[in-house]
Amino acid sequence: VITILPVTGVAEIRPGDDLGRSLEVALRDLGDADERYRLRENDVVVVTQKVVSKAEGRLVAIDPDDPDAHRALARSEAVRILRRRGDLIISETREGWVCAHSGVDVSNVARGYPALLPEDSDRSARRLHHHLSLAFGVHVGVVVSDTFGRPWRRGLTDVAIGVAGIPALHDLRGSTDAEGRELQVTEIAVADELAAAAELAMGKAAGIPAAVVRGFVPLGPPGSARDIVRPPAEDLFR
Amino acid sequence: VITILPVTGVAEIRPGDDLGRSLEVALRDLGDADERYRLRENDVVVVTQKVVSKAEGRLVAIDPDDPDAHRALARSEAVRILRRRGDLIISETREGWVCAHSGVDVSNVARGYPALLPEDSDRSARRLHHHLSLAFGVHVGVVVSDTFGRPWRRGLTDVAIGVAGIPALHDLRGSTDAEGRELQVTEIAVADELAAAAELAMGKAAGIPAAVVRGFVPLGPPGSARDIVRPPAEDLFR
Repeated sequence: VITILPVTGVAEIRPGDDLGRSLEVALRDLGDADERYRLRENDVVVVTQKVVSKAEGRLVAIDPDDPDAHRALARSEAVRILRRRGDLIISETREGWVCAHSGVDVSNVARGYPALLPEDSDRSARRLHHHLSLAFGVHVGVVVSDTFGRPWRRGLTDVAIGVAGIPALHDLRGSTDAEGRELQVTEIAVADELAAAAELAMGKAAGIPAAVVRGFVPLGPPGSARDIVRPPAEDLFR
Repeated sequence: VITILPVTGVAEIRPGDDLGRSLEVALRDLGDADERYRLRENDVVVVTQKVVSKAEGRLVAIDPDDPDAHRALARSEAVRILRRRGDLIISETREGWVCAHSGVDVSNVARGYPALLPEDSDRSARRLHHHLSLAFGVHVGVVVSDTFGRPWRRGLTDVAIGVAGIPALHDLRGSTDAEGRELQVTEIAVADELAAAAELAMGKAAGIPAAVVRGFVPLGPPGSARDIVRPPAEDLFR
């Protein structure tokens, strides 16, 4: 059984804030009223990129009235532009993510101050993993999530861009199905599924920056979101 | 708060079986021991494509010793081949899904009897929606899920190929963020997120064919998985 608890009541995050401490405080307050919010062994805390970027001061000033400023910033954050159509740029970031506008986002930030992706989202996840594990005395997994589109399918979903304390992929090689046949599917992107599941509990408009996922059973050693980056050479669509 | 309950104890499904009835029986048995399994208003039942295809008799006989038989079947189910590399074919199905081998799967079926996708996965979802809603006297959403890969990212995730009783997409146009700015993200593929969340509770090896997701709050009227199909003309990667 999986349970997903939205983490409400997190103080507004500003550049330089200790995000781990802010989440800890919110979770302690919630835990006083509802014991389900007391973190347990192997809980996974999913945190949105937006608050991670804000805490890390990844906000840059642009002219909000210049219609090309957002695109210029997206280009400057890209190592490769894959597609362009109208205002939309699909690009590859330094960390290897392929997404719209290099992940530069103008929602839920002050006008004229878009948020860049964290410099190293796995490092951001590790810091939160260490802080929360120490604060609550249990092993806590962390996923930093962002909202990406995909080809072929309409709508966006939340995916993982930073991972710590849990595997990003479950490698099922050697596993067999109920008939004893080797599974055709060999790697499940569980960190992406955790991000998607957390989005259902957080929603988009309410400004809830995190959720606790309980009941996830990790298979294999902890990994990082880098494990999810498909190298361009093995990618059929780049 | 979202809760995801794996539906264990479903009888082995064979062609011609009434899948809705099989799920109902399993849920009643589980509900006798654990009241959380008694379906409630707006619960969403996520069912894997595998059992839907089996119940609908979508198994075809191939020569299991012919290494090209699986690929030939995948080609015959495709309306378009997008990429080929070695044994792998990425193709577009009649319903509009882009995936490996047109969704033809050889895991968790008898050797030599791969399962095709349902003929109309939205219709399959609607039938289950009607059966379960009537059986339990509450409005039950249904998602038929399958396991797809994606470009740019390693690992597979579960996505929706059939939807009934809930919106497939949440349209956030006109919504504003915490700062009062219009959200950049306009459509969230909640049916895909529900499928991904359910996978976390079902896993791949245990043969669990369904999960109940509780706590999902639908925004807008029910839709279908067709809403998620991105028309080739608006797709930048086809």
